[in-house]
Amino acid sequence: MAKELTKREENYSQWYNDLVIKADLAENSAVRGCMVIKPYGYAIWEKIQATLDKMFKDTGHSNAYFPLFIPKSFFSKEASHVEGFAKECAVVTHYRLMTDPVTHKIVVDPEAKLEEELIVRPTSETIIWNTYKNWIQSYRDLPILINQWANVVRWEMRTRLFLRTAEFLWQEGHTAHASMQEAIEETERMINVYADFAENWLAVPVIKGVKSPNERFAGAIETYAIEALMQDGKGLQAGTSHFLGQNFAKAFDVKFTDKEGKLDYVWATSWGVSTRLMGALVMAHSDDSGLILPPKLAPIQVVIVPIYKGADQFGIIAEKANNIKKILELKGISVKFDDRDTHKPGWKFAEYELKGVPVRLAIGARDIENNTIEVARRDTLQKEIVSIDKIDTYIEQLLNDIQSNIYKKAFDFRAKNTYKVESYDEFKEMIEKRGGFIEAHWDGTTETEIKIKEETKATIRCIPLNGTQEDGKCMVTGKPSKQRVIFARAY
Amino acid sequence: MAKELTKREENYSQWYNDLVIKADLAENSAVRGCMVIKPYGYAIWEKIQATLDKMFKDTGHSNAYFPLFIPKSFFSKEASHVEGFAKECAVVTHYRLMTDPVTHKIVVDPEAKLEEELIVRPTSETIIWNTYKNWIQSYRDLPILINQWANVVRWEMRTRLFLRTAEFLWQEGHTAHASMQEAIEETERMINVYADFAENWLAVPVIKGVKSPNERFAGAIETYAIEALMQDGKGLQAGTSHFLGQNFAKAFDVKFTDKEGKLDYVWATSWGVSTRLMGALVMAHSDDSGLILPPKLAPIQVVIVPIYKGADQFGIIAEKANNIKKILELKGISVKFDDRDTHKPGWKFAEYELKGVPVRLAIGARDIENNTIEVARRDTLQKEIVSIDKIDTYIEQLLNDIQSNIYKKAFDFRAKNTYKVESYDEFKEMIEKRGGFIEAHWDGTTETEIKIKEETKATIRCIPLNGTQEDGKCMVTGKPSKQRVIFARAY
Repeated sequence: MAKELTKREENYSQWYNDLVIKADLAENSAVRGCMVIKPYGYAIWEKIQATLDKMFKDTGHSNAYFPLFIPKSFFSKEASHVEGFAKECAVVTHYRLMTDPVTHKIVVDPEAKLEEELIVRPTSETIIWNTYKNWIQSYRDLPILINQWANVVRWEMRTRLFLRTAEFLWQEGHTAHASMQEAIEETERMINVYADFAENWLAVPVIKGVKSPNERFAGAIETYAIEALMQDGKGLQAGTSHFLGQNFAKAFDVKFTDKEGKLDYVWATSWGVSTRLMGALVMAHSDDSGLILPPKLAPIQVVIVPIYKGADQFGIIAEKANNIKKILELKGISVKFDDRDTHKPGWKFAEYELKGVPVRLAIGARDIENNTIEVARRDTLQKEIVSIDKIDTYIEQLLNDIQSNIYKKAFDFRAKNTYKVESYDEFKEMIEKRGGFIEAHWDGTTETEIKIKEETKATIRCIPLNGTQEDGKCMVTGKPSKQRVIFARAY
Repeated sequence: MAKELTKREENYSQWYNDLVIKADLAENSAVRGCMVIKPYGYAIWEKIQATLDKMFKDTGHSNAYFPLFIPKSFFSKEASHVEGFAKECAVVTHYRLMTDPVTHKIVVDPEAKLEEELIVRPTSETIIWNTYKNWIQSYRDLPILINQWANVVRWEMRTRLFLRTAEFLWQEGHTAHASMQEAIEETERMINVYADFAENWLAVPVIKGVKSPNERFAGAIETYAIEALMQDGKGLQAGTSHFLGQNFAKAFDVKFTDKEGKLDYVWATSWGVSTRLMGALVMAHSDDSGLILPPKLAPIQVVIVPIYKGADQFGIIAEKANNIKKILELKGISVKFDDRDTHKPGWKFAEYELKGVPVRLAIGARDIENNTIEVARRDTLQKEIVSIDKIDTYIEQLLNDIQSNIYKKAFDFRAKNTYKVESYDEFKEMIEKRGGFIEAHWDGTTETEIKIKEETKATIRCIPLNGTQEDGKCMVTGKPSKQRVIFARAY
């Protein structure tokens, strides 16, 4: 088949790129670093969006929309934020094109220069807190629990489809609270929402933890993250939730009167996940035959392929297939009956394997005689012949099984590839040879963290929230440590 | 009450602005011409989106996502398109900021200049057809039926919330076809979808028609539009669908092999509606007390306000109210029980009138005794006392009635304000005195159209699709005309 993928063992990175493109998820565009998300990829993103959106609303949040552009001066207001974000960004300097009177080419009109440059948002804390300033006077105006679905731009030098692109789609929650405690609770609530989504929908097990100071979001007091392990032994940060303290309230002068009539700065959080999750989804589960999608996020959960000779046979099989389609749809299962006569069954089988459709049903003349159907599951590539009676409950159960099995496989893989090391020599050997999540003691200093990163390319993924408290010594400096942290090379 | 609106009669334009801001739909942002869509306004937009999205999918379309940025050179490829769009736009020229070593201020890094400027998309035909080029080889790759939900930027000089903003949200459908006929059918299908949505959801009657050549989309062969009439007698274009012929296929060299093996350029359509619909929604129905929302798009369809003295009474009333809420929600009705003790019932009544909640239920001690409830409908401001028995079917029916009544009111208003004129003198007098939709004969020339616009500020809204064929004479030049066209001053 023309769509052969590079094998994971040969070149994992090439396999990933091949798969994203050949499974019609996304492709590079004519604009450097920007991707086109194709309909099949976007359909998965829509399911991710719908699920998360409901989770956000169930936890009391509303959606809103803030401007794409941010005045340059806003970035100067929060000192660490500008260091982290305002550097690599798209800058709008003019607002008009014109036809050059000499060359007749389209050029930027030099007369149409903006007084102040506008930055295409890399994240929206500044423009949002500048807005909240007018919305908040008293504790009665709090909390504000707002989310935004939007595109953002960060001018990355090395880009990879979904994982790191100049423009990407995401959601960013921005909340305002009357107390520190409430803001911390919100930060933790949302990292739990993300973990729930990752494990029960993406079927990707994650470790919840806080970032080391060095890896914190620019402007945050504490950054919580969920960290996942990919099949090549590299870590991937799948979502973050930031406790911002009063930093942005101070930068934008947002104060409120509390119940006692005292003025104080407002407490803030922000949290986000992006189209990067699509990369995690692909890399966590898929194999050399193509995508493996968890049924809960698969745009097509079941495909029916007819196997027939001649129009008469097709007619009988199509009737049966459409019947099964209807029965399954009554259970809320999304079904495609691929009745195209332009492609052979073998071609279709390979195509739906590539696209990760969880269940494939094949139905031929003998099946009609025997009242049976061939059921193939994508995750294990196993096939069996089953009776058509009660096919709906059978498939419903099978989809649940596949969802659990995909998660279990990823969970077992992570368990096998998470291990403790005690010395820095061992660490260096193992990160090179085996990868995975390494649990090791660290002295808590940025200095040691940077040394490890420079020497091994491994970073601290997180300090686990539920990590065992134990006395240990930093593997590099021998200084005391109370808890192991998770190291990995990461995306 | 503090939130008093300007009366429509006093200053319609000010009334609109007051209403959009005071009903918490949207506000101006710190960035010139860009708005903040607030949660209540965004909740309406989400309902618009969900409804249209389903209609697009039911007609065979899929969503995808294309880049925010378009290389400047792409705009030069379709000659009339660049005239229409590339002029007033946001231009990205640099990709990095830096700290000025002398002033320590954040400045644009002069070293980080893009080789080719990027335009923030004002519409996406060019980037999409540049992409389709790689997707289309044969008739088997057609049709492509894609829609995109996105933000776009047009550097408008005079902006108004929702009606005309520099950044706005919209959807843009871009389809590719193997034949002219199929593309024209698609163009017509989508203007019908828009008309259906406008009439049955927004409750705004519209006239379907084609634009005069002068008002066509830049790059289109034919532009279909739906035109609505606002309460001040001005027209508003609420959606457009363009038959693009082979213009963009030629500009981006997109050819396909047809069934006979012959190479031909691909046929195109594009169609879009935007957050402008929010402006139409507000202006078509609302009154001096605030918004009037059609129930099908109201984020809250029913609000329950308790009227009580003391905690004991509140307890009994709250129990009843929560019961009613549950019963209504079983019917799929969205209900808010406003149990806040920080505001008086009268304040709440005014607030929900301002926000256009279609039905308000008030329940007090006497109602508990009598097993009744007070039902107030927002559209007519009528109140009545009804039995709580079968309140669910009663409210369900009432919401349907309100939806129909709002539409009927708008329909009657338009009927009263649509009229024929025979002479240009009469036209000039009537457009000034009465406004509305004027049906008049026109000779079909751009010259006459422009003269009328310059002298009266009225434009041809559309040439109605189902207009009566009759012999007439152009009101300006006396040249022959076969059909009346619709004139109005417009937003």
